[in-house]
Amino acid sequence: MSSAEAQPRGARPPHRDRGQAGGAATLAEIARAAGVSAPTVSKVLNGRADVAAGTRSRVEELLVRHGYRRRRAEASRSPLLDLVFHELESAWAMEVIRGVENVARQEGLGVVLSESDGRLTPGQTWVERMLARRPQGVILVLSGLDESQRAQLTSRNVPFVVMDPAGDPGDSVPSVGATNWQGGLAATRHLVELGHRRIAVIGGPRRMMCSRARIDGYRAAMEAAGLPVDPQLIREGDFHHEAGFRVGGELLRLPDPPTAVFTGNDIQALGLYEAARELGLRVPEDLSVVGFDDLPLSRWVAPPLTTVRQPLTEMAEAAARMVLDLGRGERPAVTRIELATSLVVRSSTASPTR
Amino acid sequence: MSSAEAQPRGARPPHRDRGQAGGAATLAEIARAAGVSAPTVSKVLNGRADVAAGTRSRVEELLVRHGYRRRRAEASRSPLLDLVFHELESAWAMEVIRGVENVARQEGLGVVLSESDGRLTPGQTWVERMLARRPQGVILVLSGLDESQRAQLTSRNVPFVVMDPAGDPGDSVPSVGATNWQGGLAATRHLVELGHRRIAVIGGPRRMMCSRARIDGYRAAMEAAGLPVDPQLIREGDFHHEAGFRVGGELLRLPDPPTAVFTGNDIQALGLYEAARELGLRVPEDLSVVGFDDLPLSRWVAPPLTTVRQPLTEMAEAAARMVLDLGRGERPAVTRIELATSLVVRSSTASPTR
Repeated sequence: MSSAEAQPRGARPPHRDRGQAGGAATLAEIARAAGVSAPTVSKVLNGRADVAAGTRSRVEELLVRHGYRRRRAEASRSPLLDLVFHELESAWAMEVIRGVENVARQEGLGVVLSESDGRLTPGQTWVERMLARRPQGVILVLSGLDESQRAQLTSRNVPFVVMDPAGDPGDSVPSVGATNWQGGLAATRHLVELGHRRIAVIGGPRRMMCSRARIDGYRAAMEAAGLPVDPQLIREGDFHHEAGFRVGGELLRLPDPPTAVFTGNDIQALGLYEAARELGLRVPEDLSVVGFDDLPLSRWVAPPLTTVRQPLTEMAEAAARMVLDLGRGERPAVTRIELATSLVVRSSTASPTR
Repeated sequence: MSSAEAQPRGARPPHRDRGQAGGAATLAEIARAAGVSAPTVSKVLNGRADVAAGTRSRVEELLVRHGYRRRRAEASRSPLLDLVFHELESAWAMEVIRGVENVARQEGLGVVLSESDGRLTPGQTWVERMLARRPQGVILVLSGLDESQRAQLTSRNVPFVVMDPAGDPGDSVPSVGATNWQGGLAATRHLVELGHRRIAVIGGPRRMMCSRARIDGYRAAMEAAGLPVDPQLIREGDFHHEAGFRVGGELLRLPDPPTAVFTGNDIQALGLYEAARELGLRVPEDLSVVGFDDLPLSRWVAPPLTTVRQPLTEMAEAAARMVLDLGRGERPAVTRIELATSLVVRSSTASPTR
C-alpha cells in the first residue's frame, strides 16, 4: 500500500492524464482492505443495489482513501450522457436540453435527463442509478455535487461539468457559464444612458452565483456612472414569475419608486409587467424594464422585452463537448468557460418622463 | 418452418400475451435461413453497427417474415425509457418531459430524450441507437413509426406508445391523447355564449389529428348553435407564434373580420395578440381570443389568456405507465386513452361590442 500512501486523500488532481489513470490501488487491494470479495467491490463501483449498506460505505471510504480510479473506464461506458437539472421548469431548461441533444446526436449518444427536485444537490439514489448506467459523463445544470458524490464519480472515472453553477464550484470543477457580471453591467448601463437615475434590481436566490454576478454588474454600472446605489432598490427574488410580481410591486409602491428595473431574468420581468399593470403604470412610458436570458417569450410579450441574451444552447453545447473531452482523458485548456452575453434592445425601455 | 408458415406476415397481433412471446421462429432458424451465424442475427437484433448493410436487411426481412419475437426481453432490458419528440421547442415539451420523468423516477428508470428534427418519423439512426440501448419501452410524442420501424421494435419486443398522435396511428398502436374535439367544442361554445357570431379558428398543421379534432369540435359548436360556418374563417397554421401573427393578421384584415378567434394552441394566440396590437385592436374589447394547452405563459401574458387546458403532464404519465405495462406483457384494457380537457376562462374573452 505504499503507492496509496504516496497519494494521500485530497492530493489527487481532479483530472489526470490518461497515462496516470487507474489510481494507486487495485480493485483486489481495495477488496482485501475491506475484507470483501473483488466482485463485491465491483458491485459497489457499478452502483448495484445488492450490497449491504455497511459494506457499501466501507468500500466507498476505502476507494477514496486509496485514490482508486477505475481503469479502462472508456471502453466500459454506455453511449449515454447524463443531464441533471435543478428543476425542469421553464423554457430556459428547453434551450439547454437542445444544446446537449445537438452534441449527443452528433456523437451517437443518448441523453438521459433527470431532475433533482429543486434541490441543488442530486440525491444519492440518482448517483447510484447513474453509476449503474455508466454514462460517458454528467452535466449538472444549476446544481452541484457534494464532496462525497464527487469522490464517487472520480473513483468510477465518470467526468462531470457544471453548467451555470449555483454555488462557487471551486477551480477544480470544470464549469460553463455566461458573462453574468458583464450582462448585469450592460443592462444597467443601457438604462443609465437612457437617463434613468433611480434604477432597481431584482436578483435570483442569493446562493446562486450567476445572480450575484448580475447584481455586481449592476453595482459596477451605477458606480461607474457616479450614481448612488440605494440598498432599498436591491431585492432578492427566486427567478419565478410570482417573485417578479411581488417584489416588483413592493418596489413600485415605494415613496420614491424606481423609474427602471433590471429584473435578473425574463420570467421575473413578466411578473413586474403584471405588477405595473395593476398599478396603472405603462411600460416603457412610466417604467423601463430589462430582463435576462432572452427566452423566446421575451419577443412575444407586450411590449417586447429588452433583455440580456444568454447563449444557453451554445453554453450547453460547450458543456457537453467539455465533458466528452474529459472522458477521453483530455485535460481542458481552461476548466471554466464563460460565453458572452449581449444586450437585445426591444420596446420595454425608454427615457424616463419624470 | 411449418410454424412460420402458420403465422404468415401481418397476421401477428401487435401485442401478445407473455405466454405467446418468443415468436414462431428461433434465432438459430433465422440465422440458417439467412445463411449467417446466430451471433450475427444477435448483432442485428441489438442494433450493432458491425454488420454489413445487405446482411442486416436480409436478417430484418426474415425476422418480420417469420414473426420473430425476442424471448426473455424483460430480463435483458436496461433501466431506461426512451422519449422521442417531433421537436424540442416549446414549454409544451417541458410539461411532457416532466410527466415521463415523474413515472421514470418512481420506477428507477432513466429517461433518454431524443428529437426527430421536426420530422414526424424518427430516422433509422435513431432506431438503431435505441435498439442498442435496449430500453424498457419507447414513448413517441407527436411522431410515429413507419411500418418497418414498427416491425423492428416488435421483433425486439420493445413496446411503444404514441402520445398525441400526429397522424392516425390505427387501432393497433397504443396511444394517449386529450379530448381535442371536446376542447374545440368547449372553446367555441364559450364564445357563442358570449354572443359572438363571426368566430374564426386557426388550426395546426393539417396532417396532425389533434388539430383536426379541435377544428371539428369548433364546427360542431357552430352547427349546434345554428351559426353558419364561413370557410374563410377556418385557417391552417403550424402551432408556432409566427403563424398566429400572420394568419391572425389575415383574418383581422378581412372586409368582415371575426369578433373572436379560437387559435388552436396558446403560442398562436400570442401571435394573434401581436397582430391585433399592430392594428390597434384591443383584446378582449375588440377581439376575443381562446387558446389551447394552458401553458404557464398563458397566465403571464396581458390580458391573461382564456384557454382549453390539456393535462399534458398527466397524459405523459399515462403514456409512460402504459408502455411499462406493455413491457411486462400486460395487455392494456384499452389501447387509446383520452384525458379530459377543460376550459379555463381568463381575461381574453368578452361579449362582442359590434
